[in-house]
Amino acid sequence: MELREIAELVGGSVVGDETVEIRGVTNIEEAGSGDITFAVPPHLEKAAASQAAAVIIPSDISQFAKPAVRVDNPRMAFAKLLEHFTPPVAVERGVHPSAVIGNRVVLGQNVAIMAHVVLADDVVIGDNTVIYPHSYIGAGVVIGSDTLIYSNVSIREGCQIGSRVILQNGAVIGSDGFGFVTIQGRHHKVPQVGNVIIGDDVEVGANTAIDRATTSSTVVNRGTKIDNLVHLGHNVVIGENCFVVALTGISGSTKVGNQVTFAGQVGSTGHITIGDNCVFAARAGIIGDVAPNSFFAGFPARPHKEWLRAEAYINKLPDLVKKVKELEKRVTELSPEG
Amino acid sequence: MELREIAELVGGSVVGDETVEIRGVTNIEEAGSGDITFAVPPHLEKAAASQAAAVIIPSDISQFAKPAVRVDNPRMAFAKLLEHFTPPVAVERGVHPSAVIGNRVVLGQNVAIMAHVVLADDVVIGDNTVIYPHSYIGAGVVIGSDTLIYSNVSIREGCQIGSRVILQNGAVIGSDGFGFVTIQGRHHKVPQVGNVIIGDDVEVGANTAIDRATTSSTVVNRGTKIDNLVHLGHNVVIGENCFVVALTGISGSTKVGNQVTFAGQVGSTGHITIGDNCVFAARAGIIGDVAPNSFFAGFPARPHKEWLRAEAYINKLPDLVKKVKELEKRVTELSPEG
Amino acid sequence: MELREIAELVGGSVVGDETVEIRGVTNIEEAGSGDITFAVPPHLEKAAASQAAAVIIPSDISQFAKPAVRVDNPRMAFAKLLEHFTPPVAVERGVHPSAVIGNRVVLGQNVAIMAHVVLADDVVIGDNTVIYPHSYIGAGVVIGSDTLIYSNVSIREGCQIGSRVILQNGAVIGSDGFGFVTIQGRHHKVPQVGNVIIGDDVEVGANTAIDRATTSSTVVNRGTKIDNLVHLGHNVVIGENCFVVALTGISGSTKVGNQVTFAGQVGSTGHITIGDNCVFAARAGIIGDVAPNSFFAGFPARPHKEWLRAEAYINKLPDLVKKVKELEKRVTELSPEG
Repeated sequence: MELREIAELVGGSVVGDETVEIRGVTNIEEAGSGDITFAVPPHLEKAAASQAAAVIIPSDISQFAKPAVRVDNPRMAFAKLLEHFTPPVAVERGVHPSAVIGNRVVLGQNVAIMAHVVLADDVVIGDNTVIYPHSYIGAGVVIGSDTLIYSNVSIREGCQIGSRVILQNGAVIGSDGFGFVTIQGRHHKVPQVGNVIIGDDVEVGANTAIDRATTSSTVVNRGTKIDNLVHLGHNVVIGENCFVVALTGISGSTKVGNQVTFAGQVGSTGHITIGDNCVFAARAGIIGDVAPNSFFAGFPARPHKEWLRAEAYINKLPDLVKKVKELEKRVTELSPEG
Repeated sequence: MELREIAELVGGSVVGDETVEIRGVTNIEEAGSGDITFAVPPHLEKAAASQAAAVIIPSDISQFAKPAVRVDNPRMAFAKLLEHFTPPVAVERGVHPSAVIGNRVVLGQNVAIMAHVVLADDVVIGDNTVIYPHSYIGAGVVIGSDTLIYSNVSIREGCQIGSRVILQNGAVIGSDGFGFVTIQGRHHKVPQVGNVIIGDDVEVGANTAIDRATTSSTVVNRGTKIDNLVHLGHNVVIGENCFVVALTGISGSTKVGNQVTFAGQVGSTGHITIGDNCVFAARAGIIGDVAPNSFFAGFPARPHKEWLRAEAYINKLPDLVKKVKELEKRVTELSPEG
Repeated sequence: MELREIAELVGGSVVGDETVEIRGVTNIEEAGSGDITFAVPPHLEKAAASQAAAVIIPSDISQFAKPAVRVDNPRMAFAKLLEHFTPPVAVERGVHPSAVIGNRVVLGQNVAIMAHVVLADDVVIGDNTVIYPHSYIGAGVVIGSDTLIYSNVSIREGCQIGSRVILQNGAVIGSDGFGFVTIQGRHHKVPQVGNVIIGDDVEVGANTAIDRATTSSTVVNRGTKIDNLVHLGHNVVIGENCFVVALTGISGSTKVGNQVTFAGQVGSTGHITIGDNCVFAARAGIIGDVAPNSFFAGFPARPHKEWLRAEAYINKLPDLVKKVKELEKRVTELSPEG
């Protein structure tokens, strides 16, 4: 494929030799002499110095040391190219003879139900949905179209999964919430009779666990992307288009707005409300309601600026101790008995 | 079901109209006009203002704005009602033809061994125990009665599981402990030849991993409830009726007493002893033995009051720096050259 | 087996009665009157006071209160004994009839492909490799010899696994990296078309998730041991002979040298470089490049000594506040209006 053709595909304009042949798409570090990569500031020089044959760059860059394609959004163009150069994983459609299909199951057109999948009674699966081996779909689960469920996933009874959802391997949707009533030191289980609702275009990471609600629903709204090994407690509601990064845990009944980002290993207490557009830095520990548009860090989580200031004051402590010692000395010298 | 009947069921007394018809049981936020919910302080007003038809309240409340049932323990009554209104998940008893059963396996009465379950040789399963699809039960494992093992669970060779135990989806019981001997920079595996013993009435959360002992047993004693994504290292012993909340990790050979609570994302070093009735706040990082009845927080974990005090002092730092600056100025003014 | 024979087996010398009969191998706490255990300082007295029949001790100890075997490395000798006393888990070789084998799969000599295993097309498995039930091996995966894959493991398409590797139950190798391009608030998936390469002699813990690279490879080099519930992001490279302890998360594209130790619950930001021989204390939060041979702690992670000093200063704060109050009083007394 010539660079000219790539520019057409991504709606960009060529800088330099438009006949350069492109055979692959990869990142800067790995790019060889037949590859195209992409770069945005501050990585432009690194890309220029790489082995790559060509680079996708922002449209506000007019000159570049290599053949380049200028586009408004280099990341998006790069994603488009990756898709173009990567044939979709070939999947044989149909129901594998080793799959076990319950009563009254409804399967859409063109589904792939692979080896050893188990669909319990009353499951409904939309068109083009693919389920990999060893995944278990509980009774009454409804799954939309074009959804991709990798191997060893468990979706428990009564849960609802949207369209174009991706569940990575080992994800658990609808395990019991952690609800007990303690009487005289013994913990009695509160039946967890709700479900989980996963909206359209959601992605759930490997070995992530999302608990079903005690009653009603734990909800992950559309477009939200959840990383690996995340815990969402019962009755949690996550808004649209959020990011929940690996090893984060959100305790029961907490409600999260739209476009919220939880960086890695964040924790949140339960029964609180977090507004739209909040960002929590890695390791933030959230202990109360958070207003929309907040950027929080630290534990207990507070505005990022405050956290930085507190950290700075802690770093000044040795200096402060020294100053106080000097003051003590000076005051002693000044005092009558000094 | 009339409110009068519900009061009988939970052993309570009605306040207000005892003929109100109840069709469902749910939480305050979700309650509709046919539902009963429960409330304890400080949520009583919220419940009174809800859509609910009736509320279960503590017996020391004599007046309420809605029809209510007064009971000694509203949570317990609520759990009882949830059970009453929820039929148990219907499970077909017997051994599914796709299950693979090893030699000398002993199955109790009324078990359900579902599709694609694998029971290795010499497994013993008690009466009424249910095992969901894709769970693997290793050689020589003994499981008690009325135990519920959800899908994609692994129980490795030689482990013992009590009665009325619940293992949520993806839980791993008896993976190898993390034991190596490092010689000249290479790590040699110490064979992990012990097992895991899970007591009666224990619950283990989704994708939680409990390692087998190097020798002897890793033990979770009866009544303890473990949340999702928890790690228990080899030779850990957890007492009775503990809570271990999500994303907590307990390192090898640590011994924990009874009635201990680890809130979310707690970590503990190995080879220590934690006394009965301790409570560890979320994110506590335990680095040494802890006496019984301690309430610890922070990292390194210390008495909660000390931790609060240290946090308060940190918050006072800007003020302290200001004071020292002022003092410096005053001392300079007082000094002969000032 | 007499103690004399054990000494021969481990290349040590007996102190005391060399005819003592040894029937088992276990740790100090569990040792009974027929068992041998091992001890190194500071546990020698505990071992001497135990029920054990004999103890393996360091060769620089010349006297001991019990029959003992002196060796250069007691841990290594103990590991050898454990192996000797423990017959390897008996595994029936061959392909179980319920396993599903794709097209063009190549199986080595003496493999065990157990019940319900699924091998997709073009998988290659080396000699003596064992795969437990419910594990899924994706298309084109290549696995070396003498590798042990426990139940419910997922290895996704195109990944490469070395020889003598151990994958504990529920591990996920090759799930999609967490890569998105956000445009006008919506997150678009960047196809994750790379793979994961696991070197020889690596161990991966239960329910650990290792993401495939966006392009090229996420790599875990030979001899590295990874504990349970660890997250490795896309394009991470871990060197040789590292330890990654439970609940640690390493973000995308971070490169780690050889012989690095991450203790429990450590987190690292992405796109950084960590040198050889670094040690990170539990809970360290790594936010930038780290030079070789560093011993870091705290969040943000810094040299362990600095972290200790900062902690010490924080502990001195109450004292400092008191001193400043006293100084204020003294200065007021000294001042003209005092």
